Amino acid sequence: MEDTASANQVTLDHVAALDAKDPLAHYRKQFHLPEGVIYLDGNSLGAAPLAAFDALEVASKGEWAEDLIASWSGAGWWTLGETLGDKIAPLVGASDGEVVVCDSTTVNLYKALHAALSLRPGRNRLMTEAKAFPTDSYAAEGVVATHPDFTLDRVDVEDAGFADTLDETVAAVLVNHVDYRTASLRDMMRLTQQIHDVGALAVWDLCHSVGVIDVDLEAAGVDFAVGCTYKYLNGGPGAPSFIYAALRHHNTFDTPLQGWWGHAAPFAMEPTYRGARGIRRFMVGTQPILSMRAMAASLDMYAKVDIADIRAKSQSLTQLFIDLIDQECSGLGLELATPRDADRRGSQVSLYHDGGRSVSLAVTDQHVHGGYREPGLLRFGFAPLYNSHQEVGDAVAIIKRVLETEMWREDRFGSADTIS
Amino acid sequence: MEDTASANQVTLDHVAALDAKDPLAHYRKQFHLPEGVIYLDGNSLGAAPLAAFDALEVASKGEWAEDLIASWSGAGWWTLGETLGDKIAPLVGASDGEVVVCDSTTVNLYKALHAALSLRPGRNRLMTEAKAFPTDSYAAEGVVATHPDFTLDRVDVEDAGFADTLDETVAAVLVNHVDYRTASLRDMMRLTQQIHDVGALAVWDLCHSVGVIDVDLEAAGVDFAVGCTYKYLNGGPGAPSFIYAALRHHNTFDTPLQGWWGHAAPFAMEPTYRGARGIRRFMVGTQPILSMRAMAASLDMYAKVDIADIRAKSQSLTQLFIDLIDQECSGLGLELATPRDADRRGSQVSLYHDGGRSVSLAVTDQHVHGGYREPGLLRFGFAPLYNSHQEVGDAVAIIKRVLETEMWREDRFGSADTIS
Repeated sequence: MEDTASANQVTLDHVAALDAKDPLAHYRKQFHLPEGVIYLDGNSLGAAPLAAFDALEVASKGEWAEDLIASWSGAGWWTLGETLGDKIAPLVGASDGEVVVCDSTTVNLYKALHAALSLRPGRNRLMTEAKAFPTDSYAAEGVVATHPDFTLDRVDVEDAGFADTLDETVAAVLVNHVDYRTASLRDMMRLTQQIHDVGALAVWDLCHSVGVIDVDLEAAGVDFAVGCTYKYLNGGPGAPSFIYAALRHHNTFDTPLQGWWGHAAPFAMEPTYRGARGIRRFMVGTQPILSMRAMAASLDMYAKVDIADIRAKSQSLTQLFIDLIDQECSGLGLELATPRDADRRGSQVSLYHDGGRSVSLAVTDQHVHGGYREPGLLRFGFAPLYNSHQEVGDAVAIIKRVLETEMWREDRFGSADTIS
Repeated sequence: MEDTASANQVTLDHVAALDAKDPLAHYRKQFHLPEGVIYLDGNSLGAAPLAAFDALEVASKGEWAEDLIASWSGAGWWTLGETLGDKIAPLVGASDGEVVVCDSTTVNLYKALHAALSLRPGRNRLMTEAKAFPTDSYAAEGVVATHPDFTLDRVDVEDAGFADTLDETVAAVLVNHVDYRTASLRDMMRLTQQIHDVGALAVWDLCHSVGVIDVDLEAAGVDFAVGCTYKYLNGGPGAPSFIYAALRHHNTFDTPLQGWWGHAAPFAMEPTYRGARGIRRFMVGTQPILSMRAMAASLDMYAKVDIADIRAKSQSLTQLFIDLIDQECSGLGLELATPRDADRRGSQVSLYHDGGRSVSLAVTDQHVHGGYREPGLLRFGFAPLYNSHQEVGDAVAIIKRVLETEMWREDRFGSADTIS
């Protein structure tokens, strides 16, 4: 945000003023947030919207228990993946019918990459990022394992020479919109264009951008995309993922994950697979309805919000955090790993510290819940729908205390595991 | 049940006596069942255990909303798939660590078939049943699509000549334990032996047997198996599936569906895939925790029941239904499509009628909820944990009335879709 005070001038009054003029401030009360905790890990697991509790009760006690199989049509279970996809579409610059919710992110990456390769016969290279969240690479390796002639190249899309590594042997490139470690936001328009310039297809991983960035898949001409719903979209733990296919590819791509939910005539019980027209072709088998009902409640909240307001507040929160870390924590061993340019970062700020893992545990112990990623990176995710500027200020004060007192060196912060 | 009265001798007293001595009768009150409905579609979607409601509340308001990411370890989310797998293991004759819950049935079929093929290099035939539930065939087609040298043979495992179609070019055979249309129960021991005799691997689909048949995968030497949790296991709509790998295959099979949840060191963020040891290798990405928590509540009920009692009651219910249909509905156009031998059928009875679809709709209209499958088959599934013999008697009376009055010929029963 351009009107954020510059570093070393942030006052308590300034922080309060940012909250006072925040147009999204009233959404916070629509979430359950634990008492006494500053939750800055919405980039890992979004907080629970109160509406999700009611949705689960209706889905379990009403749709399941009372209406049973009639709910497949009566409650819209059968088309729930498409219904949810249509709710996500406006958040990613897609049209109705281009997005469907189903399966896990990794399974959807596998499908999207296969689909892309099926549209570029005769080519033999698949590219993924060397620094991608590992499951992206694992999915790509699995795809290449079923394409014996293909090689998998691990590239750096942020390197100035990236475009030079592309040529007409490349079938597809898988790019992360926001780097999960550094929160670096990639230029979707430019990279997609570079990939298209050699006739390859662009597959985007939106896990760390959907719900906080004003993504525009259609404007960038993206071919396929996949994203999480349990991070900034607050869909609930392990809620299914979404997958996007540009309309121009519908009905032409192949997927080896063929199931009755993606068949053109699922109830005709045809012995041979015949893919559905449209995005439904990406569906495979029966989906976890209860988890999806909780997600629906959260997405209904997004329907009322302007994604531009979310992006603006996200930038305001991350900028305030960076400014305050600069002001309060200089000389305490922290190094900013996230771009200073607000237009080049996602809704997360990562700080490197030599004792990163222990610092993260000590900060968590002091009730500031962030994340940790090897090597040495403290991650703080900012969720515009429920985080306040006041929380940012309080979090920095606690981080400062943990570092100043060297609390993190206590034995009890020796080691632990965390989850993305 | 051997002590069931023979056809044409079933009295109301006899039906009441069967319920009076039913050792499982008290489980019915642990389910929510809609008032005024006889629910005989538990082979499609199991009824809701009351405990599932509490489990969902704890999972959503406690684990998710209050404890957030701490629940990945604190509430056992990260290992929930294995925990649930260990609960299913005794129901299918598997050991701890041989079963994991994740993804959909179709996705798991894809994984199991790939895994089987990876263990039989040099062979080039995959077999599936011509009459299998279609998604089995679609999954197999998808697997063959990524193995260009392979052919997919559609066979009849009930044909006396089946064993003769096997030879040492066959890598694997996918067999349904219970046929979804006829409820014919296949001889797992004999078929697996025949498949093994040519060195092929046996992959079993347990969707219509788990939870009602005393399956014994280890005794039969089955290699891989997959099954549903939302049918007789009452796991909730679209609850994830389970997959079994015999211990002897752990650590050797390959899967192209590679993700961080199946990695040997998921938090080390290694750039290259390295499959976990054990059944976890079949996991891919993050799983729908809320749906799995509901399932856990149901599986905890199974832990208290002897599967032999369930099988006995299942046979008693299906036998009573057949006897009463014989006695009450002769000459009304019904034809039994399910084996008369109780040891050769699952927990379902299918009746063929020329106007099957309309009859099914009319019977449903009269509050007997069964299923329908092309061509012409009315399916009635019997869930020993909540169905009573009294319900069987009442259902037959209603079916008889629908047929005698030709109610099913009314225009309003002209057409509709149903779901497996």
